[in-house]
Amino acid sequence: MAPLGDGSDAAEEAIAGQLVNRPISTVVIVIAMQTEALPLVEKFQLVEDSESPFPKGVPWVRYYGTYKELSINLIWPGKDPSLGVDSVGTISASLVTYASICALQPDLIINAGTCGGFKAKGASISDVFVASEVAFHDRRIPIPVFDLYGVGLRQTFPTPNLLKEINLKAGKLSTGDSLDMSPQDEASIIANDATVKDMEGAAVAYVADLMKVPAIFVKAVTDIVDGEKPTAEEFLQNLATVTATLGLSVTQIIDFISGKCLSEL
Amino acid sequence: MAPLGDGSDAAEEAIAGQLVNRPISTVVIVIAMQTEALPLVEKFQLVEDSESPFPKGVPWVRYYGTYKELSINLIWPGKDPSLGVDSVGTISASLVTYASICALQPDLIINAGTCGGFKAKGASISDVFVASEVAFHDRRIPIPVFDLYGVGLRQTFPTPNLLKEINLKAGKLSTGDSLDMSPQDEASIIANDATVKDMEGAAVAYVADLMKVPAIFVKAVTDIVDGEKPTAEEFLQNLATVTATLGLSVTQIIDFISGKCLSEL
Repeated sequence: MAPLGDGSDAAEEAIAGQLVNRPISTVVIVIAMQTEALPLVEKFQLVEDSESPFPKGVPWVRYYGTYKELSINLIWPGKDPSLGVDSVGTISASLVTYASICALQPDLIINAGTCGGFKAKGASISDVFVASEVAFHDRRIPIPVFDLYGVGLRQTFPTPNLLKEINLKAGKLSTGDSLDMSPQDEASIIANDATVKDMEGAAVAYVADLMKVPAIFVKAVTDIVDGEKPTAEEFLQNLATVTATLGLSVTQIIDFISGKCLSEL
Repeated sequence: MAPLGDGSDAAEEAIAGQLVNRPISTVVIVIAMQTEALPLVEKFQLVEDSESPFPKGVPWVRYYGTYKELSINLIWPGKDPSLGVDSVGTISASLVTYASICALQPDLIINAGTCGGFKAKGASISDVFVASEVAFHDRRIPIPVFDLYGVGLRQTFPTPNLLKEINLKAGKLSTGDSLDMSPQDEASIIANDATVKDMEGAAVAYVADLMKVPAIFVKAVTDIVDGEKPTAEEFLQNLATVTATLGLSVTQIIDFISGKCLSEL
């Protein structure tokens, strides 16, 4: 096992305790697509950072501002420099999560975005879920212990009061880098007991866990994976409407968080 | 499209020109598994960095030293803090590549490791390949342009003289986060025209490209994917031997690079 600290566990726990018991101050919201990000940029009246905290050349965008005494940083991985499409998926999500934690030292990360939902597990179009657990469904490494590493199951930061107050659904989230679902993906998603699937969540959770920052996952359903319509078509058809719903839910969550400690979520 | 610079393209080209025409000074070698890394740590007499350039808590390890006038940094993503296995795959590889570029500003990145080979494309156990192109085979996004983003095809930094001098094989590399190969992966690997498959290359290439650092990929075959033996079994059986071969090839490459400019590779 690699070292996890300098041995001063008591000091680390004391710091962690302070964080849990003082009001949340800085929030990083990681959102993969511009369409998903813009309603929140407008709602919170964020501005694009002209002096990016990220290295020159990367397309990552920080929108920031103060809203209800919270320092809000909405991080969008930007458009692919060569192809001009949103930099979706686990690699970009993990990189911006890492770079944002290093640059901004948030108290809390919120990964928000759209997802596919399974009607067999109770998901409908426009439902907004807060993930109780996240895992990967496309990292199959059939060697003992590496298999668990591949699945990468993680508990998310618990938010029982938030779930009660805002009346969001809770469900397990499974992450993979494909928009479609192969039979192997499906088997893993069933093994993960997932209600929703996305392309970033478990990657954000991995980095947040490495860097010891609490993270929550807010996912709005654009398409029913076990339904009749092709995923890509249904996704594009519902993206705008569902994104507005997602924006409302994230606003409610931010309103709820304002003035609270982590332990009150 | 996101901005790629501050507009001073001429200045950037001048800097790039200088880099191409002065001897390579700093090399970062990204290696996913400790078993793959240790022969090189020994060969180059590298020492583990006691003051890691990486944030506290991450398991990433830097071994460093000077060998034939090159500043060598071997970066290994370390053992997973919870599970104790090597942090393999695209997410860890992209994070350590990013963090290493930020901290060490290398002139060249070498991603070295083991891989699966396709005998139908001419690969045999213990062959060492330098990748001519890299792409992903498990990022299927069936929406126009996003499909190309998912595949993430990239040319590697050209090394015609190195290939001639050291007599390594050249071939295309396909990357995915699974050790096994699903039928969908296979179709994508065939579409990528790949001779070898690994779990990190295209991710390292993505980050190196974002950060404008030349990268090469050296991959030694531990298992024949289109052969009769199960991949995991064959991989574990050949890992130690093939790793020694990989170590020899990387040493030859470093010997060749020493004193040369990028344009002479």
